[in-house]
Amino acid sequence: MNLETSRIAAPPEPDIVLAERLFEELRERTGTSAGITRASYGMGEQIAHDMVRREARRLGMTCQTDAGCNLYMTLKGRGDGPAIFIGSHLDSVPFGGNFDGAAGVLAGLAVASGYRQAGVVPPQDLTVAAIRAEESTWFGASYIGSRAAFGRLTGAELDGVLRAGDLIKLGAAIDAAGGDTSEIRRGTPQLDAARIGLFIEPHIEQGPALVDANRPVGIVTGIRGSFRYRQARCIGVYAHSGATPRASRSDAALAVALLMAELDELWTRLADDGHDLVITFGQISTDPAEAAFSKIAGRVDFSVDIRSQSVETLGLMRAEFARKVAGVEARQRVRFELGRQTSSEPAMMHPEVVGGFTRIADTQRVPALVMPSGAGHDAAVFAAEGVPTGMLFIRNRNGSHNPNEAMEIADFAQACRLLSVFCLRDLRRAA
Amino acid sequence: MNLETSRIAAPPEPDIVLAERLFEELRERTGTSAGITRASYGMGEQIAHDMVRREARRLGMTCQTDAGCNLYMTLKGRGDGPAIFIGSHLDSVPFGGNFDGAAGVLAGLAVASGYRQAGVVPPQDLTVAAIRAEESTWFGASYIGSRAAFGRLTGAELDGVLRAGDLIKLGAAIDAAGGDTSEIRRGTPQLDAARIGLFIEPHIEQGPALVDANRPVGIVTGIRGSFRYRQARCIGVYAHSGATPRASRSDAALAVALLMAELDELWTRLADDGHDLVITFGQISTDPAEAAFSKIAGRVDFSVDIRSQSVETLGLMRAEFARKVAGVEARQRVRFELGRQTSSEPAMMHPEVVGGFTRIADTQRVPALVMPSGAGHDAAVFAAEGVPTGMLFIRNRNGSHNPNEAMEIADFAQACRLLSVFCLRDLRRAA
Repeated sequence: MNLETSRIAAPPEPDIVLAERLFEELRERTGTSAGITRASYGMGEQIAHDMVRREARRLGMTCQTDAGCNLYMTLKGRGDGPAIFIGSHLDSVPFGGNFDGAAGVLAGLAVASGYRQAGVVPPQDLTVAAIRAEESTWFGASYIGSRAAFGRLTGAELDGVLRAGDLIKLGAAIDAAGGDTSEIRRGTPQLDAARIGLFIEPHIEQGPALVDANRPVGIVTGIRGSFRYRQARCIGVYAHSGATPRASRSDAALAVALLMAELDELWTRLADDGHDLVITFGQISTDPAEAAFSKIAGRVDFSVDIRSQSVETLGLMRAEFARKVAGVEARQRVRFELGRQTSSEPAMMHPEVVGGFTRIADTQRVPALVMPSGAGHDAAVFAAEGVPTGMLFIRNRNGSHNPNEAMEIADFAQACRLLSVFCLRDLRRAA
Repeated sequence: MNLETSRIAAPPEPDIVLAERLFEELRERTGTSAGITRASYGMGEQIAHDMVRREARRLGMTCQTDAGCNLYMTLKGRGDGPAIFIGSHLDSVPFGGNFDGAAGVLAGLAVASGYRQAGVVPPQDLTVAAIRAEESTWFGASYIGSRAAFGRLTGAELDGVLRAGDLIKLGAAIDAAGGDTSEIRRGTPQLDAARIGLFIEPHIEQGPALVDANRPVGIVTGIRGSFRYRQARCIGVYAHSGATPRASRSDAALAVALLMAELDELWTRLADDGHDLVITFGQISTDPAEAAFSKIAGRVDFSVDIRSQSVETLGLMRAEFARKVAGVEARQRVRFELGRQTSSEPAMMHPEVVGGFTRIADTQRVPALVMPSGAGHDAAVFAAEGVPTGMLFIRNRNGSHNPNEAMEIADFAQACRLLSVFCLRDLRRAA
């Protein structure tokens, strides 16, 4: 039995009763006709922020907000070294589920309340962070709150990005929520990356891997980066389906199908070679006004989303995608107009965080799966700032971004138990 | 020099001036904001019928209409044996071109007028037929006029099929145009197939084969039959594009793409083996409300149209299509709902008509291409009734069913010249 194991033999139990009560209150107060709605810098998100601030104060935590309206709730530790952050977001997609985002913040409060109930003072400050505006459905920009925290949100975004639905400017929405966009415009960092010892984001899994593997918890190795063409187009020539011979066709629908099939074949090959990769053509459509069952399609609009944890794999796929597009263009006599490419960098989770959680899961007998995150998370921003970062996934059925998210509270409790042990590590000693 | 060649050494010139004048009048009187519109049993079609009847009377032809409002304009011949019919339709798709259909009827009048100008009396009656309602965009049923002529239009169609746009019942539209649906309901044939020696349908080509081959005229070997799924669907499972691993996906968009790619590969193989075949997925669409660039598609709607001149090839393709659908379902964890299948039988053109036109084209030095018709035509109905049937295609740029149809009058004249020679054959002597 080594020293670490002995120290964590009787870890403080996280306060799951508190978390359950807050999940219930969130569901009641932000519920809509289907699921819940917590708009970024809008009413539902504000209700959630006010709730968790109230609870943090009851727990004796110090509460601060920054210029981007992010909320930091700190339980004082013994030393004054860099803090451990547990954080996630409190906004949701419209008609979303109650757990995406909120589970991470409530996990932090459950750990803090557990320490308090057990009379445990952590080796350094424990800060629970409630980040703003993570769901890009509202403002069409990614990681707004966490980028604001590091002075990375631009004036162009503040002025140019409008909220879906009410078309309010991002900057106006931040100011209305009590933020300070003049400071954001100056690029003033609200957080000092050097003062954050670790950032841990607990989050429900958005895919089926934990359900399929029958494990309550996932330990994330990295967050997939991506490149996307959200509004790509293939241009062919409309022609009679019966009267146009094979060699004279410029069939945009067939061309896109062949591109998809070729990329699927490449995916199989790269996956066999150990590459982390997912490829999705989520939207595809002939022109409803022009297309007909007896017409060869002269135009197809589509979107493609390619993701990997590896910068090298993304680079390889960029080249292969371009090569295959050119090949299909030549062979099928069509033209692709790919439109603007958007992309995000992959973020690796810190190996010592991954290793630490793996060891604790082992000792605590919590069956955990070491796995990538396919979706993007605020943790990627913290990792990019050089903060040692990790993520814990909690098993969840039915995916996320819909009212049917189904996280079991017992699985949530397992994740909180791992956090409760992990956040007692003394970072000065570890370093 | 054989007898036939000597007989046709100085054939009567068809009256192209007449045809040009009628094309121009048609364009003026049925023109709309884009192209022309001649609705089946509607105003534009009626204008065209009235015009050609006026001209036929001026040429001394006998005019008759039947219970389905088809118009038969007959130039009396020397003998009283079965007549030669030249015919096509006078309706058009909405915002269509001036030549699709009308070219066939005006070719017949140009030949008849040419005989009259040259003082030639044909060996048997020459009947120019203006068939009603060939474009199924209006009533959603195929070959309405020609089927009415043979007593093959059903009461269910008369009562149940409504015209797109004004939702007038087919039966009501026929009666309003001066027809007699009570006779159609009784199934009374308006034409006696045994009294039609030959049916020849001149028509603009709707594909690019003649343009590509640089020939003014095509001699049609057969009309492709088809089977179609006009409203098919593939059902998968919506899921997160980044977080759902390959093995857990039920991607409806990828499934349809793989089906299309497999059928394209099969098409290549069958074409190499000499099969006549075209395969078209003309419409494909994810659900605009549900699909997103970051979601695996849970549903795709599509249409497929498979055509061949050969009954055997269509049978083979029916089996292969079902087999490939089942294979994709199993491998991609999706489900296909193909919906109702509609189909039409292929029709072969009479070998002696094909041979006759080929010889005349050769003698008259008209470069002609022997080719299939991918589109359906009234000629298929006459062939199915046992009438020896043929079709001549006229070169046409930009396809049909659009305002940009571009038939050159010189190419039309070449086709008329072949007809003018061909229709002087004495059917009693030939038999």
